[in-house]
Amino acid sequence: MSSLARERRLLVFHTGGTIGMREGPRGFAPSRGALVQTIAATPQLHDPSVVIGERDGRPVLTTPPFASGLRVRYELLEHEPLLDSANLDLSHWARFAEDIGRFHDEFDGFVVLHGTDTMAFTASALSFMLEGLAKPVVLTGSQIPLVRLRNDGLDNFLGALGLAALHPIPEVMLYFHHKLLRGNRASKHDASSLDAFDSPNVPPLAVVGIDVEVTEALRLSPDERPFRVCTELCPHVASLRIYPGITAEVLANFLRPPLEGLVLETYGSGNGPERADILDVLREAVGRGVLVLNVTQCPRGEVRADYQVGRALAEAGVIAGGDLTSEAAMAKLALVLGQRAREGWSREEQVRRLQTPIRGEMS
Amino acid sequence: MSSLARERRLLVFHTGGTIGMREGPRGFAPSRGALVQTIAATPQLHDPSVVIGERDGRPVLTTPPFASGLRVRYELLEHEPLLDSANLDLSHWARFAEDIGRFHDEFDGFVVLHGTDTMAFTASALSFMLEGLAKPVVLTGSQIPLVRLRNDGLDNFLGALGLAALHPIPEVMLYFHHKLLRGNRASKHDASSLDAFDSPNVPPLAVVGIDVEVTEALRLSPDERPFRVCTELCPHVASLRIYPGITAEVLANFLRPPLEGLVLETYGSGNGPERADILDVLREAVGRGVLVLNVTQCPRGEVRADYQVGRALAEAGVIAGGDLTSEAAMAKLALVLGQRAREGWSREEQVRRLQTPIRGEMS
Amino acid sequence: MSSLARERRLLVFHTGGTIGMREGPRGFAPSRGALVQTIAATPQLHDPSVVIGERDGRPVLTTPPFASGLRVRYELLEHEPLLDSANLDLSHWARFAEDIGRFHDEFDGFVVLHGTDTMAFTASALSFMLEGLAKPVVLTGSQIPLVRLRNDGLDNFLGALGLAALHPIPEVMLYFHHKLLRGNRASKHDASSLDAFDSPNVPPLAVVGIDVEVTEALRLSPDERPFRVCTELCPHVASLRIYPGITAEVLANFLRPPLEGLVLETYGSGNGPERADILDVLREAVGRGVLVLNVTQCPRGEVRADYQVGRALAEAGVIAGGDLTSEAAMAKLALVLGQRAREGWSREEQVRRLQTPIRGEMS
Amino acid sequence: MSSLARERRLLVFHTGGTIGMREGPRGFAPSRGALVQTIAATPQLHDPSVVIGERDGRPVLTTPPFASGLRVRYELLEHEPLLDSANLDLSHWARFAEDIGRFHDEFDGFVVLHGTDTMAFTASALSFMLEGLAKPVVLTGSQIPLVRLRNDGLDNFLGALGLAALHPIPEVMLYFHHKLLRGNRASKHDASSLDAFDSPNVPPLAVVGIDVEVTEALRLSPDERPFRVCTELCPHVASLRIYPGITAEVLANFLRPPLEGLVLETYGSGNGPERADILDVLREAVGRGVLVLNVTQCPRGEVRADYQVGRALAEAGVIAGGDLTSEAAMAKLALVLGQRAREGWSREEQVRRLQTPIRGEMS
Repeated sequence: MSSLARERRLLVFHTGGTIGMREGPRGFAPSRGALVQTIAATPQLHDPSVVIGERDGRPVLTTPPFASGLRVRYELLEHEPLLDSANLDLSHWARFAEDIGRFHDEFDGFVVLHGTDTMAFTASALSFMLEGLAKPVVLTGSQIPLVRLRNDGLDNFLGALGLAALHPIPEVMLYFHHKLLRGNRASKHDASSLDAFDSPNVPPLAVVGIDVEVTEALRLSPDERPFRVCTELCPHVASLRIYPGITAEVLANFLRPPLEGLVLETYGSGNGPERADILDVLREAVGRGVLVLNVTQCPRGEVRADYQVGRALAEAGVIAGGDLTSEAAMAKLALVLGQRAREGWSREEQVRRLQTPIRGEMS
Repeated sequence: MSSLARERRLLVFHTGGTIGMREGPRGFAPSRGALVQTIAATPQLHDPSVVIGERDGRPVLTTPPFASGLRVRYELLEHEPLLDSANLDLSHWARFAEDIGRFHDEFDGFVVLHGTDTMAFTASALSFMLEGLAKPVVLTGSQIPLVRLRNDGLDNFLGALGLAALHPIPEVMLYFHHKLLRGNRASKHDASSLDAFDSPNVPPLAVVGIDVEVTEALRLSPDERPFRVCTELCPHVASLRIYPGITAEVLANFLRPPLEGLVLETYGSGNGPERADILDVLREAVGRGVLVLNVTQCPRGEVRADYQVGRALAEAGVIAGGDLTSEAAMAKLALVLGQRAREGWSREEQVRRLQTPIRGEMS
Repeated sequence: MSSLARERRLLVFHTGGTIGMREGPRGFAPSRGALVQTIAATPQLHDPSVVIGERDGRPVLTTPPFASGLRVRYELLEHEPLLDSANLDLSHWARFAEDIGRFHDEFDGFVVLHGTDTMAFTASALSFMLEGLAKPVVLTGSQIPLVRLRNDGLDNFLGALGLAALHPIPEVMLYFHHKLLRGNRASKHDASSLDAFDSPNVPPLAVVGIDVEVTEALRLSPDERPFRVCTELCPHVASLRIYPGITAEVLANFLRPPLEGLVLETYGSGNGPERADILDVLREAVGRGVLVLNVTQCPRGEVRADYQVGRALAEAGVIAGGDLTSEAAMAKLALVLGQRAREGWSREEQVRRLQTPIRGEMS
Repeated sequence: MSSLARERRLLVFHTGGTIGMREGPRGFAPSRGALVQTIAATPQLHDPSVVIGERDGRPVLTTPPFASGLRVRYELLEHEPLLDSANLDLSHWARFAEDIGRFHDEFDGFVVLHGTDTMAFTASALSFMLEGLAKPVVLTGSQIPLVRLRNDGLDNFLGALGLAALHPIPEVMLYFHHKLLRGNRASKHDASSLDAFDSPNVPPLAVVGIDVEVTEALRLSPDERPFRVCTELCPHVASLRIYPGITAEVLANFLRPPLEGLVLETYGSGNGPERADILDVLREAVGRGVLVLNVTQCPRGEVRADYQVGRALAEAGVIAGGDLTSEAAMAKLALVLGQRAREGWSREEQVRRLQTPIRGEMS
């Protein structure tokens, strides 16, 4: 076998986040050009016996061989500026999708280094924006910077490279702490632990142990459509978590124009206060074309369309969101709203699209 | 031993919720007077060989003997009207606290039947409102009504009676699916499972298996103060979960008078967008005396006061909430705000009180 | 719909175990005829408005309607004598299988009340002995007797009745603490908790929450063969767990005739001491036709046939058991050994059968 | 602060095991002198800017600074020969203890690299053999060799060094996959996952996440006795797991001289077959002075001394082992048997010592 056949070529986007931070005068902070230096000093991420290449201004790095004998050669594309994921908004999601789109045919797969704070949001959004995806896209990051002696960045980054190269699943995924999750099912469930993410309503796509165990039952049927990037996201979406004593005024403020879509995080299986003033506010907004999508505020579980609970909300036009995570609900809402005008979808069609799984995001 | 010594006397408040629902034309709904009938037909909850008594208009029920030989005799006080917990607000919390206060010296303990949707909120609030509590207060309920053949109400109710009577811990607690949780640490973590609650940042106070295993390390030192009910809750509190693309306008709407306290559910260990417009809105509100308490939107973990993350929020006056749950944060905020005017607390004193554990609610 | 169509008819075997025990002078003990009395006093298990019937000497009991409106009518067949499951041996497994075989065509399904101590062994054995099974067989029991006020027997028994009647999966299963497990995958993992069983290498077949969630990916393809009971179990099987310092003498004693099959519970992924004296003992026994099946002594994981670890054991003729539980390994070994003489299977054929899943017992 | 004060000095024993293996013609195997080469090529384990020293023939290695600024300087002492932990017996336990004893006063702490297969046994034994221990002893290893690109050895080894140096708890502990476990509570629970160990009956001593969270409630009161190594282990101990159909003959073979101690792994809370022939065999052995210690074969739970189950076993002289793991039971038995002759302990005294916690090994 030729030496070329013993390699996989990936593109790694460094968008920012803890994994690439350096210590500065005000604590850890993003630092332009720092990550490639850290990688170069980490022999697991770049074989020091291989010269660091360069292509179109991007450093070309090469891992030592994985157990199968394969090396991963990857180019590092650093965002300008580097972004703290807490500062991301929907315009960044679109840019990330376009970046992948631009290089889709050129690489065997993609790794996106990203801050943990909104990684599950971005993974959800990318999954919806990339249609007919034929390559793996793995988001990862870390709770502790790679420059720290004890860190989780090395395991996460190396694992993401290995999965994208050697176990390619043509989906947007999130890899963290040995679990490969479907991107639009993932959620950050622990602020303090290295085991920071899970997908509460489905098992992981794969678990990395002594071997890589793939959950075959979760494989999606191949998306045979031509690859296409849909970045028409409506930015006028928001998310609101119900709490005791919430007022109609708070809700009305949220629902004012230009808002077009609201993820309503209700109690339990989809319940909210059934007060007349609150239902009136919802009904009025729905009448104006606002889409209100009901998901549970519990970390696990679902809102059921056919259930008696939340019936008053349903009668006010609130849409049952099944077992969508809040993150996936917001991303899907932005997508459907972004397309409805151009496509001329009726409200029924919009609701149908929200309630029909398109990327394995709901059961 | 006399027969009297073989009993414990509890008061059970039936506030509403799934556990006591009956099937009606529009599905399951609260039904006045129905619960005592269901109990009377459930020999585990009332020994059919004992006549149902009556005291001050309340039915007096008696369980068969527990393993220790003790029976639990309990009076059932039904709220008028019965409340779906999704409809509760802070005025109900105060009423529940007053009810317990009224009967505190008269009974060996209390069980509060409550809907699951906001049970963790009510448990948190009661824990703060009841000072010098000398009796166990156990909230419970169920995911499936007690009238259904297969239900979790029987186990939860019977377990709560047994724990309050036989393993009395003088705290406000939440019992569900064999776990006894500290009330102000509990959270509803699953909308669909019978295992609906956990306390993500501490282990259960007790686990009910073949035996009852109590976590001794969690015991609080006894609260020696005279018993007192503090119902001065400020109703002008709200909760907001940060999401990508959140605008300064949304935040400003939330923070408008009469709001006095906001639980800000941030990303991860306490991060939010560090945009100038958002920080300005926060700074302005803090300047007006609004308390903004920062907790994580992750189901588990904490916001650290001494940490570099969230520093911009901290500099804008946002208060680090440690490992408070969102539910406990809202309740504690309402309490501190309710007392600050009368007590003349400075902002520093208010912050100190929020950041100091008073009922085991934070680590 | 006629009243008959609103019922399912099950046969319940009461083999003994904690669930049916009564308190006696020396603690809880099996008690002939006691269970039907307890059931009669438990309105969830028998509707007191229905007369207890009798058929062929067996009491006929009727549950109240489940949520779907269906009642379960079941006959109770009590073993004579009642058996503590710690005292069971392979002859009892055969008897249980024959009992089910005798009634297979007559009922819609079967529930087997059984002690918890060896329930996973019996479930494994029944799964192999019942070929072409077309009805659900659900084993259950409890950690606390049904006569105790607080017990897990009611939930387990009622759940097993409901699953066998309303969610019939034509397999041998074990139901405990809201989890329906594949019988030959189950193991008792906790001696003290009510959550006593799991199936460490596969998820539950179903989880009972507000609804019953079935794991579709685990469904076996229907066994179309005619129903048949295979009770030719070789009784000369044993199980031995390797420990530091184990001697060749101990192993040789185990492997002496009449032993024909040994489950060797090795360390980790299939490792044992590679001392010459121990390997000689194994080699000699294998030469005599003894089957030695290698499973891991870890609660979770597998022994791999293609793996370098345990290579010395493999070369001595020890057979890699994959992710078989120890319980299933012993039962399958007894079955293969029981049939090999009649069928004239070569050693290769015996090994092939041990390593090929026949009832979903290995991955 | 001087540069010396910025270091901790540890001694690392390399006893063998997967972590240090190299690939050879027959797969991965121990390889003399290989580990120090791998460490030297791993900059997280040895700072390449520091010269590798030498002391008494041992290489002296130095980590880069941990987050606190401290470096760990450690000497590597390689066993001759390197041992596959599946091949260990009690003589090795004694040697390991003596090694630590020899260096106890000279170093700040100890790390023991060990195969995973019997690591929990060795950790248990060391905990009992080291009396008055004043330094941390951390056992670790890995599921995948350190020379593999993707491995868990780096995290485990570096974590063990960091805990022994920076969070010193004067106990024998086992560190694996971010959990620091009490050594005599640990058990290998997964053959395939990187999360291979847990301590089923108590929480971890510490969990390593973004920070190191120590479970204060588990701290033992300091052992003020002078440090002493007790290596008088009786080698005539064995372990036997009960299974259906076990015969009196099998049991009698196990209990024959020279056996002096048997860990009997019974069903559930301590049950075994109550057949007369089996009880006779036990009674006879106990009469000869054999100690038979009853632990549960369930991964979690306990055998209770005051419980009615297992009463027949108790009457035959079998000793209830509480929530001892099987690993700790075997080690403790070897120790008590090793000392009883010299100390002239009565049977009562032997039983009392077995049932009294001495190193936090039982609840």
